[in-house]
Order: sequence, then structure tokens, then C-alpha cells
Amino acid sequence: MMKLTKKWAILLCALFPMTMMAQDKKSFTLDDLMWGGSNYYNIMPRSIHTAWWGDCLLQTDVEEIYQLYDEKGKICNKKCLFTVKEVNAAVDENVHGKVRNLAYTTFPKGGKTIAKVYADKGWAEYDWTNKKIVGFVPHIYGAQAQKAAPQTGARAYVKDWNLHVVTADGTDRQITTDGTREVQYGMSVHRDEFGIHEGLFWSPKGNLLAFYRMDQSMVTDFPLIDNSKRVAELAPEKYPMAGMTSHKVKVGVYNPQSGKTIYLDAGDPTDRYFTNIAWSPDESTIYMFELPRTQDKAELVAYDATSGEKKGVLYTETNAKYVEPMTPIVFLPWDASKFVMESRKDGYNHFYLFDTTGKCLVQLTKGEFEVIEMLGFNEKNKTIIFKANAESPVRHNLYSVDMKGKKMTRLDNGEGVHNAKLSASGTFLCDTWSKPDMYRQVDLISTQNGKTQNIVAPTATPWKEYNVPEITGGTITAADGKTPLYYRLVNPVDFDPAKKYPTVVYVYGGPHAHNVQESFNYGYRPWEIYMAQKGYVVFIVDNRGSQYRGFEFESVTHRRLGEIEMQDQMKGVDFLKTLPYVDADRIGVHGWSFGGFMTTNLICSYPDVFKVGVAGGPVIDWKMYEVMYGERYMDTPEENPDGYAENNLCNKAKNLKGRLQIIVGLNDPTCVLQHSLSFLRAAADAGTQPDYFVYPGQGHNMMGKDMVHLHERITRYFDDYLK
Amino acid sequence: MMKLTKKWAILLCALFPMTMMAQDKKSFTLDDLMWGGSNYYNIMPRSIHTAWWGDCLLQTDVEEIYQLYDEKGKICNKKCLFTVKEVNAAVDENVHGKVRNLAYTTFPKGGKTIAKVYADKGWAEYDWTNKKIVGFVPHIYGAQAQKAAPQTGARAYVKDWNLHVVTADGTDRQITTDGTREVQYGMSVHRDEFGIHEGLFWSPKGNLLAFYRMDQSMVTDFPLIDNSKRVAELAPEKYPMAGMTSHKVKVGVYNPQSGKTIYLDAGDPTDRYFTNIAWSPDESTIYMFELPRTQDKAELVAYDATSGEKKGVLYTETNAKYVEPMTPIVFLPWDASKFVMESRKDGYNHFYLFDTTGKCLVQLTKGEFEVIEMLGFNEKNKTIIFKANAESPVRHNLYSVDMKGKKMTRLDNGEGVHNAKLSASGTFLCDTWSKPDMYRQVDLISTQNGKTQNIVAPTATPWKEYNVPEITGGTITAADGKTPLYYRLVNPVDFDPAKKYPTVVYVYGGPHAHNVQESFNYGYRPWEIYMAQKGYVVFIVDNRGSQYRGFEFESVTHRRLGEIEMQDQMKGVDFLKTLPYVDADRIGVHGWSFGGFMTTNLICSYPDVFKVGVAGGPVIDWKMYEVMYGERYMDTPEENPDGYAENNLCNKAKNLKGRLQIIVGLNDPTCVLQHSLSFLRAAADAGTQPDYFVYPGQGHNMMGKDMVHLHERITRYFDDYLK
Repeated sequence: MMKLTKKWAILLCALFPMTMMAQDKKSFTLDDLMWGGSNYYNIMPRSIHTAWWGDCLLQTDVEEIYQLYDEKGKICNKKCLFTVKEVNAAVDENVHGKVRNLAYTTFPKGGKTIAKVYADKGWAEYDWTNKKIVGFVPHIYGAQAQKAAPQTGARAYVKDWNLHVVTADGTDRQITTDGTREVQYGMSVHRDEFGIHEGLFWSPKGNLLAFYRMDQSMVTDFPLIDNSKRVAELAPEKYPMAGMTSHKVKVGVYNPQSGKTIYLDAGDPTDRYFTNIAWSPDESTIYMFELPRTQDKAELVAYDATSGEKKGVLYTETNAKYVEPMTPIVFLPWDASKFVMESRKDGYNHFYLFDTTGKCLVQLTKGEFEVIEMLGFNEKNKTIIFKANAESPVRHNLYSVDMKGKKMTRLDNGEGVHNAKLSASGTFLCDTWSKPDMYRQVDLISTQNGKTQNIVAPTATPWKEYNVPEITGGTITAADGKTPLYYRLVNPVDFDPAKKYPTVVYVYGGPHAHNVQESFNYGYRPWEIYMAQKGYVVFIVDNRGSQYRGFEFESVTHRRLGEIEMQDQMKGVDFLKTLPYVDADRIGVHGWSFGGFMTTNLICSYPDVFKVGVAGGPVIDWKMYEVMYGERYMDTPEENPDGYAENNLCNKAKNLKGRLQIIVGLNDPTCVLQHSLSFLRAAADAGTQPDYFVYPGQGHNMMGKDMVHLHERITRYFDDYLK
Repeated sequence: MMKLTKKWAILLCALFPMTMMAQDKKSFTLDDLMWGGSNYYNIMPRSIHTAWWGDCLLQTDVEEIYQLYDEKGKICNKKCLFTVKEVNAAVDENVHGKVRNLAYTTFPKGGKTIAKVYADKGWAEYDWTNKKIVGFVPHIYGAQAQKAAPQTGARAYVKDWNLHVVTADGTDRQITTDGTREVQYGMSVHRDEFGIHEGLFWSPKGNLLAFYRMDQSMVTDFPLIDNSKRVAELAPEKYPMAGMTSHKVKVGVYNPQSGKTIYLDAGDPTDRYFTNIAWSPDESTIYMFELPRTQDKAELVAYDATSGEKKGVLYTETNAKYVEPMTPIVFLPWDASKFVMESRKDGYNHFYLFDTTGKCLVQLTKGEFEVIEMLGFNEKNKTIIFKANAESPVRHNLYSVDMKGKKMTRLDNGEGVHNAKLSASGTFLCDTWSKPDMYRQVDLISTQNGKTQNIVAPTATPWKEYNVPEITGGTITAADGKTPLYYRLVNPVDFDPAKKYPTVVYVYGGPHAHNVQESFNYGYRPWEIYMAQKGYVVFIVDNRGSQYRGFEFESVTHRRLGEIEMQDQMKGVDFLKTLPYVDADRIGVHGWSFGGFMTTNLICSYPDVFKVGVAGGPVIDWKMYEVMYGERYMDTPEENPDGYAENNLCNKAKNLKGRLQIIVGLNDPTCVLQHSLSFLRAAADAGTQPDYFVYPGQGHNMMGKDMVHLHERITRYFDDYLK
């Protein structure tokens, strides 16, 4: 090492004081920044766990439960309700096992001093007044799904693809017997599309259980392989590809009292989707949305829950492109004859009030914004409490709306991105939120009058001892010449505007997701900080086709996935080229899944613009993607041969000039290996040279420690070829 | 581009005349050099195709057949026997199809003017005196194996794993009916080990057919996947891994006349190997070598070909490490009571003369060299004509030996590497040979008196218009301090001894193969020329464990595959470091299969020596390799747990420091994907970063155009990281 004389050292400090200061600060490792990294939880500022006990807000720490506010919103000065020690004094270790952590405790019996705590052997109900265990629900080991019934204490679960119900007295009954990998009961269906994520639906009082039955025996098996064994084993996945034979779904209703099961009389299930199952408050009726395979129509249909008889179609929505009902109807807590339905029929997702005859009473929300999520109802003032992006497409704020659709009231400060949990009666929100220059804040908000009390003070800028980059947000204009697109721009640490920096475009670009919002650092991904440390500019813009901008914005890509999206991304590149410190000769691109498709597409379509790409789990050819998602956006290969052919990246493999690394999880059941392998085959045939990596034992997205390895890999690739 | 004044240009030429001249020469592309490249056959100097017609040597061109020498070895001045036009005038296109190429014509009926020519629809026998088609054997489409019987004109073939025989009258009989992927008839068995490469063995007169039957229903399926389809399909491979349950083989004998099949009474086939099937000249007896699974004993056993009864054990060989009979016994053409057997029992592969009682009459060849291949007999002077490396371990020369083992005569000039075909009676050899400074020469050699006539003049240095590297050979001393090891050293083109060059060690290193010999360019692989053009030194040394150096040299690696081999390779590196122009900081390594194992092993075991490695189709963990090869060299995992564990490269993945790219054929049935995937998993777990590539649709070795792509890939990797 060169030895500096003191004089020289002082001179250098005088010349580069800023730099020296920045260099004194620490740098993050990937183990700090990546979810799955060994130091992640030490680096990320901690918040508190909270839970509602009726309308009282509690803080659930690992070892203690505190009351923060009472049911009137009056502060309680962290009154301790009970400790993990007290709970463990009450449990019978042989029966319940130990309780190790109270952070996930819930308080479903508002009013009573009863907490549901997680014990080694099950969920225990702890009465903290009497310091006794008053109820216990043992774990079901090996269950593929489970759901507790409200009120009755019964539980439904799935094991070996068959449905079981444990009644409150502990009797465990196997309800179905023909369950197999091919015929599944009580599991999520339709590959989790249409908002589906489960297959067990208890009625409001817990007297009846609706459940899915999916027959996929007619669906082609895709031969996934489990390579973790010495001799690899087959682990096939029923994977219906666009245009191919799909599975058949029915909805059954089991009555634990009679032991009888009926099926809803929905007719031939061939090429149909049944989604968003909802119960009438009186348990007499089941509602669901039904779509034909073409996905151009959705019907809200009512069934008699006892006989299974079809009672009628309450509502029909059609769209030449597609309809996509994502949420079940929700009945008003104070009026069982009315329900709220979400629909994008006017171009944006909004609430509509219906009566049970199917009459639309009123459109409750309206405007060029989207309802993001219904949080519940304030039963006192008869309002819906919900999240929407009415202030800006890149904000999520909290609102109430009355039942006439006349008065929509913002409940928060209108800034940033808010996530809130509603109290039992809907009078309070516990609101965790952030904005670009603030990491996190937690508030208590009254949904009656908007009164806000701060619970966790704002963490404005964490990591003061670290060298963090400047991250800014803004808009550019889409390729249509009019639509604003939101971007995030990450400048390198120790930024010097006189320098030229290599630049990486991060992209997703597909429906149902967005990357840029006005949360902390404009919705940054921690890897961007790592790249900024390494001296990269990182740029992210949400192109048309992405989430929360209304139907037209999303569906302009219909039948031509990738085309409009790329045009918009190239507008982002045009913008980057206006920045004097972006080295236009060193632009890279990276994305995963749809973003892997975009990355591969961009580097093959604009080989002179993008020098380096890293494409994770990419779709390469939409006809190898699954029926529900694939046909919604692309129709079938038979209906749209040109759209499939022109956006099949195998046909573009010959254009590859720069360096492209494709990375996949070897056991990806979502975007099967066929995609990347077809591209490699096409590239070898065409004489182009993509790179490749696989993570054995990983699926569509990397989990755990491999996330660190993966991002070291991605970074190294840009370091090798873009720097 | 900089514009030079004329004066400057002249001055530059004067300063660097050599360089300029070298630069004027052409460079090879991979399409020129690689087998599978589009220009390969234009670049490689052409030879002639020859065929024996009895003892007359013919030249078989695409369009004409010439006679070069008569049966006395008298030159015939390229007398044209017939042309493809004449053959096509004789064929009935509807029956025989067209004849497009005479290059592969054979002349099995010496004496008669009949040629066997390949026609579109079968093999036609053309009588060039009468200009008529006198026989025709139609192609069998979809046959998995086939073999024509001598003399009778019958043919055996395998279709859908069942045995069929077509008799001379054209009757096609299916002999077996229970053939499946699990129970195979007439196919090669024991994964082509022990010299096995086929499963159909006609008796000398064509009256009986011996055939293998392999039951592998008890063998684990390895789930290979055919990814060429839109929905990938399973293409499982029965793959018995070391220590696991293996297949069971029997030998049947079918008599076309009686239609009956018997099986040799060899006892329980569990964990036994049957190999090197041979017939007695009178068709009464079948001989084969039998080994227990331990491979420490080989018995030569005789069976009655009619009853299947075991007649006796003629010879037994044992070895604490392993025995490996590779060739069937061969009866003397002039004495049906005696046969020649090859064995390495004295440490080197030699001929032994036995009588049919099992008495060893004499060791025919002897010395510290190996018999490489028996070419046949000279019946007139009762000698064996064969190839051996008696002049030098890196030469193959042609010899005869008499039946007393007294007189071994060299028939060629003692230089280089010779490949020869023997004429019908064994009086002449057509010898194609090369030596380090000569690409190819073809001679006619009399086995009676060694008289040599030149047929194709020597092509000393082809590619005069190309810039070729200097390739030299030599020896270093092995890590045992005494054994000479042969190397080949390729210097960069435009070599400047004052420069420092990056250097790539190419390695195989396993048994049954060698890389260095005194053929053209010391046995160069054309890719080395490409690398030399790119400015690399390439070095290849055959370590202990490799081929043709005797049993001790090969078997010193027993139970510890990789260890001794690496010690010797490191002696090669020591040698490289003595060369002033080798940059010791830029040493890379590349190899395929066993060489992929060696490459991965070397870069992980000597991470400070090897900066870059490219490992193709590597073995990573010997317990995932197959039973026959694996247990011969490593015993079973149960018998040799330390040997397996210490040479399992997964345990070394953590040591990887430099850049290692593993490349495999996705459908490799020899070294299953499990190997490379296990290594990737181990590396990800350990936080090291190998690179990876797969060729979909390829097996253990790349075929066709992918060879060019592959070598572009390998080269690019060294260019990226070693240059």
C-alpha cells in the first residue's frame, strides 16, 4: 500500500472532502439487503406488531402484549395485558407444547379477555383474566390446506387431496375418498387466477362448508423433476397450456350436521371458471362469478346452498377483450338484502351496491382511479372503509364512502402509500405507511372523524451510517404520446454528474403488478441500493399493461403481449439518454418472470441499445404458458396465431448481440423449464450465445439464501460485461 | 482508420516483415475446424476411400470404382471397374431406389465381380461383368439393431425391443414377443462396457444366432426429459447407479431352421456380466467371458450351442483390483482347435494361444507394450497381423507374430500412428498413417515381406495459406518421480517468446482414452489451432490412469479416481511454469466427461492455480455414475465410502474461486444431469458461483452444428476471463 505523508493526506482531504466523507460511511452487503440474507432483519428498521382486540389496539411483542389504545381511541400508555411467561405457566406442556412467541397472537373474541396464541402443538385460547387455557385447537400435520369455521369451532382440512372436517367435539371425518393429485378437494383452483387463493369456504355461522373440487385428470402432465434425490424422481405438474385441454371444477357444500354433500348445479364444467365464492349472511345462498373459457363474460350466479339449485343470474358483464372479477361480493353487515360488488366495467375498479334481486342500486365510487382494497365497514356510520389511488396513481390512500355513493372521504393525509387494518366495528384503522423520503410511520385513525394519533414516530431516513444513493421519482410520456408513466431513478452513491455511469433498467411490465409508487424510496427494491453502491444508475418505469391504472391502460397490450410494453420501455431509454451522466453505450436490463420475458425481448429486439440483460424465469413462448392467464391476454394460439408467433422469443433468439443470462428455478411449476430451454435451443441453432443458470430445488421465484446468491450472480454479470 | 503515408508503410514493413507475412495468412474459423462445422470437409485434406476385393485393393469414389492393385500387389493404374451411372442403369428404381454414392461400397464376395452398393431402398448386389443387380436386401426401417448372417443371406434385427429374423427367402419372423424397454432382446448390454457394442452374434456359417436378452425391469429409472416437444415428455433411462440394483443378462441362441430358441445355462444372472461372445468355427460351441459384479475375476466359459449346456471353464483370471476382458477369443483360421485370447494378466495387453481344452500353449506377444488391435491373420504364413505400441507408448505400428510367439515382425516404418485394413487372405494391408509433421499418407504393405508401395503421397503440411501454430511433443515425469508422461504443447500463432501468454490445459485423464500420440500434430484437436490463433498456449498431458500404458499405470487410480490423475496434471503445470512465455497467473483448464470431472476437480482443488475452467458433462459424484464403469474403478459406495466421499466434488464446490463454466447435454444418458445439478446446488449453498450451460436435445457429447456453437462458447469463456 502506498504510504502517504501527512501533508499529502491533508491535501487530499481538502481536495475531496465530500468523497472522503462518503467513503467513511459503510456499504451494504447483499446479506444486509436481500430478503433471505443473513443480516436482513438487523438492517431493516423494525416496526411493531399490532392486533385488534375488538376496537382496542394492542401491541403484540414476542414476550408481552400491551394495550396501546382503548375502544374509544384513548391512549393506554402501553398497559401490559399479559406475558409469554404467564401463558406458559398456564399451558400443559404435554398437551399444548410451549408458547415461544406472542407476536402473532390474535384476539378474535373482542370483549372477552381471550387471546389465541401459537403453541408448539396447536393454537391455544388463553384467558388472561383467569390466567387459564380455555380452548385448544391442535395442529393438523401434513395438511395441504385448512380453514377454521367461524363460531362453531369446527375445522376443515385437506390431506392427500381429500377433504376432512373436524367438528368442535374433535371428531375427525374424512368427507371424500377419491382425492388424488388428479382429483383434488378443498384446494385452490384455476392456478390461482381470478383472485382465487384457497378452496375452503365456511358459511358465516360455520354451519356449512363450501369447497372446490378440481378434476385435472384430463390435463397433460408436465414432467417436473425432483433432483434433490440421488436418483432423480418425477414430480409431475398438471399444466394446461394455452389452447390445450383444461381442468374441470365443481363447487360442493358439506353439511357437518347431516354429513351430506351436495354440488352446485352449475352445469357442464368443461372450459369454465368458477370464482369468488361468497355466502349470504343467512347461509341459504352461495354466490359466485362464472366465466366461459373465452373470459369475455362474467356472470354473478346465486345457488341454493342446501339443494345446489341455481337460483338465478344476478349480474352479467361482458368485454370484447376480457373481464376479470377478482373479489367476492360482500354483504352489508347491517342489511342482508344488499351487497357490494367490485367491477372495472366503467374502466376503473369501483364499488357498486346491489340488492339480492340483482338490481344495481348505485355506483358507490367513481372516477379515473382504482379501488385497491375493501378494508371493511364502519357499521356505526354505515360506510365502506377502503384503499384507493384517488390522489395519484402511485399513492394508496384510505377512504370511506357512504351508501349513496355521494360522500367519499379521505381518512389519511393523502400522501404516500398506506396499509391499514380495520378494528372490529370499523371505527379505527391502524395505518402503517411510508412516503418517498420516509421509511415508515404507524398511526391510529378514527374512521368516524379522521382524527389521527401517531403510534410509531416516522423513521425518516434509516441507515445514517451507510452510504445510500439518491432515489427520485417522476413521469415520462408513454409511446402513445399522452399517457404519463411513473418512473424511479436511482443514482449511484458518491454521484458525480460529470461522470458517465453504466445504467440498468429493471422491468416487470406485466399485468397485476407495478414497480413504482410513492412509498419509501419510490418503492425501491433493496438490490438497487447495492447496484448504486457499485456505481450503476438504475431506472424503473411502469409501462402500459401494468397495474392500477385502469382497464384501458392495462388491456392495450391484449393479444400482443410485449409490444406496447417495449415501446414504453424504450421511452424510458429515451429519457435516460437525456441524462448526461447515463452512458448510453452501457445500458443493461434485468427482470424476472414477465420481466424476464421483457428483458429477453428487449435485448433481442433492441440489440444495439441493450448491451447486457439478466432474464429470470422468463416466458419465451406464450403457447407454453397456462390457460387462464395466457388466454386472458393472448386468446388461444388458434385464435391469435400471429400474436403468438410474433411475440415468441425463440424467433428473436437470432438477434441476440449483447450478453444475456437467463436464470431459472429448475423446478419452476409456473413458467416451466420449456421456455428457457426452447430459447437456448433456438439460440444454438441460430449461432447466438445466451448464458444460463439454474437453481436446483427452486421454483418460479428464489427463496431463502439463494436470493443472496442470485443477486450476487446478477450483479456480477453486469460487473463483468457492463462496467 | 489511420491513414499511412507510403513512406511509413514501407518502413513498417521493413520493421515487422515476419509479422506482416503471418498476418497476410488466413485464420481458421470454428466452422473450418470443428467436426460439425459447415466448412470442415473443405478444410481437412481429403483422402481416398478404399475397399478390399479379396486381396485386390480398390478405390471407392463417389461416382466410380477403380482397381488400384491386383491380388499380387501389382499396380493397376486406376483401372475403372464400374461407375455409378452403370449401376443406376441396372437398378429398378421402383424396387431398389437410386444409388447416389459408391464411396461405401463393399466387395464381400472376393473373386466374383459383385459389389454391395447402397441404394435408397436397400443394399443391392451389383455384378459389374454382367451389369446386373443380382441380389437385394431391403432396408429395415425403424430397426434398433440389425446384423446380416454370413453366407445364408439371413438377417436378424430388433424392433420395439423384440428380435426378428428375416431368412434368405424374405420370410420375416418375430422371434420374441415380450420385448419392452425393460426387457430387451438383441441389444447391446452392460452399458457398452467390457468391449460390448452389439447384441446379435451370427455363427460363422450363419446357421445360428446368439443374442443378448437384458431384463432391466428391476433397475431404477432415471427421469430424462424430452424437451423438444411443446409439452415436455418423459424419456426415462434405466440407469443402475453404483451400488444399486443392476440388470440381468442372458444369452439366447435361435435356430432359424428349427425355429427354436435355447438359453445358455449360465446360472443366476444376478450381479454378473457376460461378455465377448464368440463362436467355435464349427458352430457347436459358444464362448464368453463371465465376471461377477466385483469384477475381480473373469472366466472364459464354453457352452453347447444346441443345448445351452455349460461345457466348462477354460480359463480363469483374477486381480485384486479388476479384470477387464475387452475382446472375444478368435480361432485360428487354419486350426479350429486353437484360439487366440487377449489378456493383461502380465500387466500389458498381449496375445495368448490356447487350445480348446483350455490349455495355454504359448504367450504370443510379450513386453512392456500393449497389443492395441488384432487386424486378422495371414493364412499363408500363419501369422497374426496386429497393431501395437511396441516402438513407443505414443505410436501405433503394424506387426505380425508367428504362432510360436518367437518372431514378432514390424511391418511398417516404425514411425507415427498407423491404421490399417487387412485384405481377405491377410497378405496385404492398406495402411493410413500420420506422424507429427505429416498429415496423412496411405500405403500398401505386404504382410509377407513388408514391401511397401505408396498409394496416397504424404500430405506433409496442409493449410499453407493459413497461419498455423507450432505444436510440439515431449515427456515430463509423473508425480511418482519416475513414470514418463507424454505431452503436447501448442504455442500461439505469431509466437513471440518474449511475451506472456494465457495457457489452457486440456485434460481427459480417465481410463480407456489418451490424448497425446505421435500422429499428425501429436494427436491435436483442431480447437487447439483456434485457441493458438487467439493467442493461447494449449497444453495436454496424459496422466497415469489413461490408456495404453499397461495395467499398473492405469489402475494406480483404483478406488481414488481423480487423486493421482490430478497430481500428474500438476506436474504438467510445474512444467508450464518453467516456460518463460507461459503466464502462470493466467492458467485455465478444460475437459469433457472424465475430463469435466478433472476440470472441476482441478479448479476446486487448486483454486490459486487455475483461474478459469470449462467442464463439459462432468462426473461430480461417482455414486451417481453407473454400476459397470463406476464399480470397476471405485468399488461400491458401501465398500469404499472414503473414496467416494473424498472425490465427491460437491464437497469441493465451496473452494471455487476462479471462473468455472459447466456445460452439459440436457439429455445426457451417460452422465446424468444429477451430477452438474448437485454441484450447482452445493455451490449455491456454499456461496460460490459456477456458471452453467445446457444443450437441449444433446446427450453426453455434442453432435453436429452444436459442436461449433459449443467451442465458440468455450473459447469465449476463456477470452472473457483468462485473457
